[in-house]
Amino acid sequence: MRDYYQIIRRIVKRNPLLNKIYSTAKQSVINNVINTHIGEITPFSPRMSQLSGKRLNLLVPSINLEHVFGGISTAIKFFEELVENIEGCKMRIILTDAGPTNYDKEKFKDFIISQCDEDPNQMKLIVPFNDRYNKTIPVGKEDIFLATSWWTAYAAQRVAGWQAEQYQQNINKVIYFIQDFEPGFYQWSSQYALAESTYRYEGPQIAIFNSSLLRDYFHNHNFSFTEEYFFEPKLNNHLRKILLEQKDKLKKNKQILIYGRPSVPRNAFNLIVEALRLWVWKCPTASEWTLISAGEAHPEVELGNGISLLSKGKMTLDEYANTLKVSALGISLMISPHPSYPPLEMAYFGLNVLTNNYENKDLSVYHRNIHSMQKYDPDSLADELTKLCIDFDANHELESQHSDSEQNDYLNNSPQFLFLNSLDLFPKGVVE
Amino acid sequence: MRDYYQIIRRIVKRNPLLNKIYSTAKQSVINNVINTHIGEITPFSPRMSQLSGKRLNLLVPSINLEHVFGGISTAIKFFEELVENIEGCKMRIILTDAGPTNYDKEKFKDFIISQCDEDPNQMKLIVPFNDRYNKTIPVGKEDIFLATSWWTAYAAQRVAGWQAEQYQQNINKVIYFIQDFEPGFYQWSSQYALAESTYRYEGPQIAIFNSSLLRDYFHNHNFSFTEEYFFEPKLNNHLRKILLEQKDKLKKNKQILIYGRPSVPRNAFNLIVEALRLWVWKCPTASEWTLISAGEAHPEVELGNGISLLSKGKMTLDEYANTLKVSALGISLMISPHPSYPPLEMAYFGLNVLTNNYENKDLSVYHRNIHSMQKYDPDSLADELTKLCIDFDANHELESQHSDSEQNDYLNNSPQFLFLNSLDLFPKGVVE
Repeated sequence: MRDYYQIIRRIVKRNPLLNKIYSTAKQSVINNVINTHIGEITPFSPRMSQLSGKRLNLLVPSINLEHVFGGISTAIKFFEELVENIEGCKMRIILTDAGPTNYDKEKFKDFIISQCDEDPNQMKLIVPFNDRYNKTIPVGKEDIFLATSWWTAYAAQRVAGWQAEQYQQNINKVIYFIQDFEPGFYQWSSQYALAESTYRYEGPQIAIFNSSLLRDYFHNHNFSFTEEYFFEPKLNNHLRKILLEQKDKLKKNKQILIYGRPSVPRNAFNLIVEALRLWVWKCPTASEWTLISAGEAHPEVELGNGISLLSKGKMTLDEYANTLKVSALGISLMISPHPSYPPLEMAYFGLNVLTNNYENKDLSVYHRNIHSMQKYDPDSLADELTKLCIDFDANHELESQHSDSEQNDYLNNSPQFLFLNSLDLFPKGVVE
Repeated sequence: MRDYYQIIRRIVKRNPLLNKIYSTAKQSVINNVINTHIGEITPFSPRMSQLSGKRLNLLVPSINLEHVFGGISTAIKFFEELVENIEGCKMRIILTDAGPTNYDKEKFKDFIISQCDEDPNQMKLIVPFNDRYNKTIPVGKEDIFLATSWWTAYAAQRVAGWQAEQYQQNINKVIYFIQDFEPGFYQWSSQYALAESTYRYEGPQIAIFNSSLLRDYFHNHNFSFTEEYFFEPKLNNHLRKILLEQKDKLKKNKQILIYGRPSVPRNAFNLIVEALRLWVWKCPTASEWTLISAGEAHPEVELGNGISLLSKGKMTLDEYANTLKVSALGISLMISPHPSYPPLEMAYFGLNVLTNNYENKDLSVYHRNIHSMQKYDPDSLADELTKLCIDFDANHELESQHSDSEQNDYLNNSPQFLFLNSLDLFPKGVVE
């Protein structure tokens, strides 16, 4: 976004008319308008409900197809498995950022969509609450909230406080499904501070961490929760089947697969490109390699020395699997303590992968094909990639290393949320 | 910047013509242009110089008046004191981001401005090197570089490597004047990673930390340098004189002074405003207080309940001192391990100050007037501010607490850089 802004700014600067419009707009903004509201904490106001019974509320920004991948999809899966485990528990999905305009109607076919001013006694509800200024949502004494991002946790924590006061009962537990250290998604700022504050909530809060690595990071930074659980990454089912069928037949080409998402800053796309610009001159066999970027569509990037980075955009799982099967090397950066899936997928499909450490994260312990770098500036990345290219030439008769030497649950299809039975969410007796 | 972008975006959206221009520009950007270059690491290319002799090079983004305050001004002061300490040492100020278009000619009157394609033998040079694409700058065997931001360190580290190879000598030390943990100025991103990489440089590097707090933060995160020194904050000379003359005559009004810099995200201006919006309803005496924001001009902000936050913009030191003298309470946030000066200035002028902890930073150990919060969401801030307002009413007969109880060097005018004699910068003998 920021990049677009700067590019647009440059284009605008060259055009006198556009520049005049821009300057006038900017000055008027500075003089007359200043947005001092933090959108994420727009009040999430509850009202009393006459309904009784256990109900688990999933707070998610959106269930629209364009948003539901990765994190949100894992959270929905957890929500479903958790409810299955609690007898007679109702489900309510509350959408905080976008109404259900383009969602998977098949997936949510048992759900009824209701508005926040209604209070229907249904087992499965979806309630859009994105446009909530001056509105309230009904909350009963046995509603429990499952938060999936810092601003949904911010809302849940305040609703739980209101609920205890309103119904004269102990504070219900908040479940916080934590898939990254979200303050890191911002520079030091109001949002950074607010995101961090949700980890310092004083009420009862159950943290469910996406990976032990992430939990350790929180511990290292002195955050702790009333109860803590974690789950570990597992290879996607479809990819697992393909891999298990074909792992002895992996034949590697001189192809480097890059996890390229220009719009996700923590994947450091520009840093990778700057490294490749050095690599095209440093690596004596550079011109023999094909460079492919997958993850998000972007224009072809000329790297110099006649070499380009081609974009394949967001692939289907089959396309992705086929690319993994024939690629010899991979680069996938993730500046965060979250393990990130592409380096693991690449490693298990026999690619030698360059990735980065982040504090306690060092993925090289997960698979011997993963080369995790502590210092990963463009020079260091280019040097390490050159080394891997030369190694491939020396060993290509052996094809790539196989992936069956590692010992963990990543490759089997055992349940992912092993702790579901330990969760004790609803109070046994309610103080009257 | 980001805020302006969003506001401009909203204005543009409401105007069909502007919206069309914008959409066309954005689409063209996405389709045809993608800025994969990281501007901060534009090559900083050296060439050999025939000049000999010790020379200290200050790498700063700019010396223009609009940029030289706080950090850059402290770095220039250090540079000058350091050179004074080295016999026969030449000075060169290299500008990496902006040419000298509006600088203090009186302050730099002994300096000669030269272009990077020249190589004059002068004791005091200023060389603009912001527009450096395809250009080089002369570097001799005894040039030593003093970096003042991550991208100037990035350049210095690479030049030092080139210099050692070119002149067949040991790598000269790089001096890194560190005034904050700069990766925190970015979300997790390429820039974050590059900034962090400069702390992992393998060559000889002397870190000069602005404060022991900041040094401790680096140690806690496992960064270490060849040599490390630190200096502590000191009250500005002018403010010190005013305070020492008048500290028994401080008469406090019901005025809250806010350090308000909307354009500096780590000062969390919006977070403070959101807290004040709650405080105007929570605090029973809210309407009796005057709220003043100083630091950066912004429009008046209506807080609700008939109360507004007035902006005084950037004050002169005298105006600032006069405001400090009569204000009873202060709020100054800084999301960073750097101590930040306003909370200290406020505390010593007898204000009770709300500020925030950040990891190892807890300014309450510096002065009993400082109330440093671990959790500083709007609710917590509003509660704490209400408490201070009520306390003031209970104790206003006593006026405000005096500031003479604290024991440290903050208030005296002893030298700030106590370690200058320990620095051993230039090699005794050069390998021929």
